[in-house]
Amino acid sequence: MLKPKKNDLKKISLDIIEAQYALKNSRGKTNARALLVLIGGVEFSGKGQAIHQLRELMDPRYLYIKADIPQKYDQYQPFWLPYIADLPSYGQIMLFYGNWYTDLLASQFSNQQNYSEKQLSGMLLQISDFEQYLKNHGIDIIKVWFDISWEYCQEFVNDLNITKVLHKVPHFAWDNFPTTQWLNKHLFKEIDHIRKKFTADWIVINSEQPELRNYQFSQIILKALKAPIEIEHKSSSFDYQSAELYPELLFSSQEKMQKKHYQCLLKKLQKEIAEVLRYDSRKIILLFEGVDAAGKGGIIKRIIKYVSPYEYNIHCIAKPEDHEKHYPYLWRFYNKLSKKSAIHIFDRSWYGRVLVERVEELIEAQDWQSSFKEINQFEKILTDNNTVIIKFWLMISKEEQLKRFEMRENTPQKKFKITAEDWRNREKWDDYIQAASDMFFYTSTSYAPWHIIATDDKYTARIKILTRILLSLKQE
Amino acid sequence: MLKPKKNDLKKISLDIIEAQYALKNSRGKTNARALLVLIGGVEFSGKGQAIHQLRELMDPRYLYIKADIPQKYDQYQPFWLPYIADLPSYGQIMLFYGNWYTDLLASQFSNQQNYSEKQLSGMLLQISDFEQYLKNHGIDIIKVWFDISWEYCQEFVNDLNITKVLHKVPHFAWDNFPTTQWLNKHLFKEIDHIRKKFTADWIVINSEQPELRNYQFSQIILKALKAPIEIEHKSSSFDYQSAELYPELLFSSQEKMQKKHYQCLLKKLQKEIAEVLRYDSRKIILLFEGVDAAGKGGIIKRIIKYVSPYEYNIHCIAKPEDHEKHYPYLWRFYNKLSKKSAIHIFDRSWYGRVLVERVEELIEAQDWQSSFKEINQFEKILTDNNTVIIKFWLMISKEEQLKRFEMRENTPQKKFKITAEDWRNREKWDDYIQAASDMFFYTSTSYAPWHIIATDDKYTARIKILTRILLSLKQE
Repeated sequence: MLKPKKNDLKKISLDIIEAQYALKNSRGKTNARALLVLIGGVEFSGKGQAIHQLRELMDPRYLYIKADIPQKYDQYQPFWLPYIADLPSYGQIMLFYGNWYTDLLASQFSNQQNYSEKQLSGMLLQISDFEQYLKNHGIDIIKVWFDISWEYCQEFVNDLNITKVLHKVPHFAWDNFPTTQWLNKHLFKEIDHIRKKFTADWIVINSEQPELRNYQFSQIILKALKAPIEIEHKSSSFDYQSAELYPELLFSSQEKMQKKHYQCLLKKLQKEIAEVLRYDSRKIILLFEGVDAAGKGGIIKRIIKYVSPYEYNIHCIAKPEDHEKHYPYLWRFYNKLSKKSAIHIFDRSWYGRVLVERVEELIEAQDWQSSFKEINQFEKILTDNNTVIIKFWLMISKEEQLKRFEMRENTPQKKFKITAEDWRNREKWDDYIQAASDMFFYTSTSYAPWHIIATDDKYTARIKILTRILLSLKQE
Repeated sequence: MLKPKKNDLKKISLDIIEAQYALKNSRGKTNARALLVLIGGVEFSGKGQAIHQLRELMDPRYLYIKADIPQKYDQYQPFWLPYIADLPSYGQIMLFYGNWYTDLLASQFSNQQNYSEKQLSGMLLQISDFEQYLKNHGIDIIKVWFDISWEYCQEFVNDLNITKVLHKVPHFAWDNFPTTQWLNKHLFKEIDHIRKKFTADWIVINSEQPELRNYQFSQIILKALKAPIEIEHKSSSFDYQSAELYPELLFSSQEKMQKKHYQCLLKKLQKEIAEVLRYDSRKIILLFEGVDAAGKGGIIKRIIKYVSPYEYNIHCIAKPEDHEKHYPYLWRFYNKLSKKSAIHIFDRSWYGRVLVERVEELIEAQDWQSSFKEINQFEKILTDNNTVIIKFWLMISKEEQLKRFEMRENTPQKKFKITAEDWRNREKWDDYIQAASDMFFYTSTSYAPWHIIATDDKYTARIKILTRILLSLKQE
């Protein structure tokens, strides 16, 4: 390939701008998509210069760049958490100059942490699942590695006053990154060795000729802006069959508990749960789904009774906000989990995808069918990273629901709890039972099992749930 | 006041729900407003319990709670930065269980930091300005202190296994807070002494009777939901008079620089600026405004030439996104500054308020007039917290603009830079000159002065700007 001439740059600038606007205009349409560019490469490979040239060729107002200093992985959170708020929404092109791969390298080299082959491939598998999820939902990803040789690198180093660079960097925090990669041939080679474990599906640019490197990078971006996304074939990846109906959903429970007995047990359990939650260093997700009026609000109220608001965050999930619709459906949940709280209580959750969105036919059948696997992957990565997920389905009989609906309508301060939507959902009772059965069948995993609780008798139900939470927390 | 009866609770629940929905429905309307509740009080004063009861009386889906552990002030950022993303948008009610006052107490007591009276009142003045800004823009604020006596507190302490509480708290990080406030009478009194310096405009609840305390808190919230916001009378607070036109805006510059001389100087300055920016530990804001086609993009490109993308963030400011319109106008800028980058480059900025929004009459005259003071306060608090703000206005003559517009229209890859809007703005040239003159007059402060740069000759202009940046950074 030859050096680009001035006219080549003019030409590619025009093409990129056109492609950029086509992407931008896809926002809000059915073919809406986004482009995420992950950048990698050692120091002096000219990544920054290539980005600067790209900015000059594009309309820079619509080129988004996130450039965080690489950080060591935090074992208490999934690798995507620091990046989630900045994922591109549909219509955007976003460059992650620092990203989960640079974090991986920082982790591997900063403290001689040295992941084993097995750990490394486990992490890469998680990354691959996550990236495939984004692709399947309209965010295309390309990954570009800027490659230089040790000898080329040394030419730069010789021009620098190394001591100065090493000692005078206050806010450009090198601490977490192999700063001496260009001083130490062994380290340089080692980085190259590790990066080759994940760059098989990357585009590698030989970066020793700056002008050519920059031009090639622009060509890659242009191609990516124009290319269709590789979406995993959903139908072939998963053969959906509807599950048997779960008997717990069909028969109402006859258990009863005396009020006095309940009150005594309740207080004891509430105090115990507050203490256990406080001294558990993991992130804890308590998730509640169930038929309308089955008592989600009531049990949540009782769980938090002696817990300080500092410790928990309650997420009441309704339909997404307008700006949340410009992202893959799990995005808003990723984002909520980035809150610092240790305890996240979900009053409804991401399972809306396979419940209301399925039953109300808000999405195509293949979309909710493929969600089972996606949700399992999502929960797996959370539980692999020091998180406990305890999922409850609250169930009442159809007769009991009618009673509660009527009670709500006749109690002024509870009337807001009952809407026309609840009555409509009730008409689709059987559809919800089928959807719930499928959900249990496909998403009750060893790491995040479902617990089905009959709540006809509220006292029995609450004691069961509190006991179950304690058990699950102590078990692991 | 008597203990609340069951019927009192039912009644207030109904009223609160009604008021809550009225607030919610104000969203998107001209009278849109939000309510922010700041909570304070020592341990065992029952703040958490009062919030739990409030949740039970309201529709909990629309009661938002942010509860961060108090943190010491970070001298590198304004006190509002950790809270800015979670400010309520119009239609919302938000409780900040941890807030800038709890942070203030944490700072004062954690390491015996002990602010002087003067420092303390300086901080409280900044807080007061910020809160008044929010009120003036539809976010009402009420502050509630839960008060108990030392003797009452001791009753609780006697019931606890203190050693256990002190030693077994992993993620509920007390480190930053006076944990022993309930063990040490002197400290307890000292906290009370300090809090009285700022709680003059708070509602103080005597919290020794739990039921009454909870009920009173609900009554306070109800009243706040229904009350109109106290808006500072803008017209009386500031007597706007239009400024004389600045001569720099009226005459075109005749300076010229030879290309060769320019290129030589440019490279030297670019390298110097990259180095100076890198080793400056402050947050740096480079802000560019100016007439269309005056060369903002061109100078930004040249500033970042040798700066790593890790170090800067470029914000291209256009009209606000839909969801940003549900906040006071400065909110989106607060929010952008919460990005970690050390260098923030603004291609247009918050000054759009007194430029395009004024000239296009998108807002009332009294709104842009009161913005001068608000913007000055905003910049003052930034510069008081380790931030440098360097503001440039780029100016070309009307003839030069015409030439550049025509050039853009005739250069395919630059055509996106010129739109019908630019031509419309050009017709309002004189209005913009007046608006810019007013802006310089009212917002050129000692801590964030404006620099007007004639950019008819791009070479001269760029060298001047780079030199000015270096000078400003070295000066302070």
